[in-house]
Amino acid sequence: MTGAVVSRAAELDAADPLAGFRERFVPCGDVRAYLDGNSLGRPLRASRERLLRFVDQAWGERLIRGWDEQWMDEPLRAGDALGRVALGAANGQTVIGDSTSVLLYKLIRAAVDARPGRTELVCDRDNFPTDRFVLQGIAAELGLRVRWIDCAPDGGVTPDQVAHVLGENTALVLLSHVAYRSAWLAELPEITALAHQHGALVLWDLCHSVGVVPLELDDWGVDLAVGCTYKYLNGGPGAPAFAYVRADLHERLQQPIWGWMGAGAPFAMGETYQPASGIRRFLSGTPPILGMQPLLDMIDLVTEAGLPAIREKSVTLTEYAMALADQFGVTVASPRDGARRGGHITLAHPAAREATARLWEIGVIPDFRPPDGVRIGLSPLSTSFAEVADGLSALATVLSHAG
Amino acid sequence: MTGAVVSRAAELDAADPLAGFRERFVPCGDVRAYLDGNSLGRPLRASRERLLRFVDQAWGERLIRGWDEQWMDEPLRAGDALGRVALGAANGQTVIGDSTSVLLYKLIRAAVDARPGRTELVCDRDNFPTDRFVLQGIAAELGLRVRWIDCAPDGGVTPDQVAHVLGENTALVLLSHVAYRSAWLAELPEITALAHQHGALVLWDLCHSVGVVPLELDDWGVDLAVGCTYKYLNGGPGAPAFAYVRADLHERLQQPIWGWMGAGAPFAMGETYQPASGIRRFLSGTPPILGMQPLLDMIDLVTEAGLPAIREKSVTLTEYAMALADQFGVTVASPRDGARRGGHITLAHPAAREATARLWEIGVIPDFRPPDGVRIGLSPLSTSFAEVADGLSALATVLSHAG
Repeated sequence: MTGAVVSRAAELDAADPLAGFRERFVPCGDVRAYLDGNSLGRPLRASRERLLRFVDQAWGERLIRGWDEQWMDEPLRAGDALGRVALGAANGQTVIGDSTSVLLYKLIRAAVDARPGRTELVCDRDNFPTDRFVLQGIAAELGLRVRWIDCAPDGGVTPDQVAHVLGENTALVLLSHVAYRSAWLAELPEITALAHQHGALVLWDLCHSVGVVPLELDDWGVDLAVGCTYKYLNGGPGAPAFAYVRADLHERLQQPIWGWMGAGAPFAMGETYQPASGIRRFLSGTPPILGMQPLLDMIDLVTEAGLPAIREKSVTLTEYAMALADQFGVTVASPRDGARRGGHITLAHPAAREATARLWEIGVIPDFRPPDGVRIGLSPLSTSFAEVADGLSALATVLSHAG
Repeated sequence: MTGAVVSRAAELDAADPLAGFRERFVPCGDVRAYLDGNSLGRPLRASRERLLRFVDQAWGERLIRGWDEQWMDEPLRAGDALGRVALGAANGQTVIGDSTSVLLYKLIRAAVDARPGRTELVCDRDNFPTDRFVLQGIAAELGLRVRWIDCAPDGGVTPDQVAHVLGENTALVLLSHVAYRSAWLAELPEITALAHQHGALVLWDLCHSVGVVPLELDDWGVDLAVGCTYKYLNGGPGAPAFAYVRADLHERLQQPIWGWMGAGAPFAMGETYQPASGIRRFLSGTPPILGMQPLLDMIDLVTEAGLPAIREKSVTLTEYAMALADQFGVTVASPRDGARRGGHITLAHPAAREATARLWEIGVIPDFRPPDGVRIGLSPLSTSFAEVADGLSALATVLSHAG
């Protein structure tokens, strides 16, 4: 790293109003630049304490009484909190539970049932594998056709492309708000409105936007959304996902996994399943209470920092990373326009896989995404500009030796 | 409590070879008798330490590298360990993930697909609600008929009853090994063999037997099984469930939720879903790694204590509880024969609901199960005979005032 790069990074860190939040995270040992917060966010110190309190008190002392006292409502209460701080969702529309994949399955099935006679699903070929796979499974099961949209590798789905495949047969559009490779930020309100003009429902995958890109799901008229909580929400490996279902759709949608915790009166042990009213009907099994504890800390932290400030730092971080990539002669495969870019960038190089492996050995941790992407995920509350400078410099050096 | 009751309980505790294991659990505060370990097992002290280590090191320092280094295989490795110590299952047939309800959905759907043309499902009316509800949902979805078996309130399903409804149209039999109310222990090997004679598959719900009743799934020729890990396996509220699928069925079964973590090469980000070989294909989303940590401690503890010794204490505990109930004039609604009884007993009384609420106020914690059951769950590694004596005496006193 040149002195100029070092001092510029130091200037940016000194001017960063969110810099103090970095101390809230557990130290990361031998890692000198963590550039994969969009795959797995770092743990908060507060989560260590919360987990201990949880084991000692909530679980260890209240025992089964915990379900009556707080846990029955915790998936909804945490969902409401997430909705307020990160989704732009009024209470009663967000719930925590299951994995993104299972929630995708439930909501896609529910949406298709709510559009009887319509035989087409819309998705893009660069959507995250689990979205495409779950959709393919349902299409195979129900005899539906998927209309696939092709995207540029450094871009993403546009309203024009969606308009081109929408029609009176479209039951559901399934897209990611931020593309997992390019970080393309889709024009969510426009695409949602387009789908509605054709009577279709839209399901947004928010995995790569929740906690880093402000959302206004209610204002934008979104029907359905899912997302994970282990990226920018720092919930830990395999933390439960969330589902958003707009309030007026609850009574019109029925999901296919009729577990007891989605029933109206689970402890009545009744003869037949009657779905709960409201968002609870999208639950199935016993909710992962222990597994959602760290998420609660990050919801608090996002509340404290404020999502607009987080987004501002996020855009600055990704711009800075792109400027460094340009300076080092590494190809950027993400949108240049900050308004069309999520919280990460991808750099393209034929030796991306080997370079990532080499970087991991020296404590610089980006992610590899096939075929040729080094993905740089920048979690605003835990990432410094110095880390970005250090990591990108190391990447440039490794690539310069990759021939 | 009379002096005779107190001294008899003390004798039994003094003679209990597993008594020392009680110290391994987190203290339970104001609870003087925890009689609901079969709804939510108590946390282990070791789990406090494991969770801290997990946050500080596995998650906090290894970060995303944890997936490569250990987490990708953890659901299978933990499944294998559980299979060895508690299920009688050879490696490669058990996996941890999702909830019991979601796993029931996946395996019922897979089983029905594997028996094309067969239109009937068998279940009992006293099976746990989530089993019945999930089955009802699938029956409604696929136009199948459920053949319901009626059981005595203090008993459970018999091979004769199953034989009566089995036929060439039976696709799947779904039963619980131990009934959640009566604790009836079904004749699992006999019923499995009967179903196989008719070409049907059997799915056993092991929620109330795993960790307390020794199982030999491989030897018994079981096809499919699921169970939760928050009861006798002390995994914590909403801990992930497990699925067992016999090895020779893997390639013949496909589950409907085609999430990326059930695909053969999830990080290839390929175009189409190809199920993984082996038990991994029954996964869907990112597995709940944080949520399965406490379970790992209990697997260790069960290994150390040995399931035969656990079962022996379990039978002694339930016998002792029944003897006290008889002495106090409370009606037992569970099998008298230890060989037909799981790890809990249910006591029947018209004032069961109010009595349970009153007992909770004084730190005696059984569970209420409608319509009239006070359920006494006795977790062998954490429950003393003195607790049983104290709890049952308190119950008798409360009931004597209930009029």
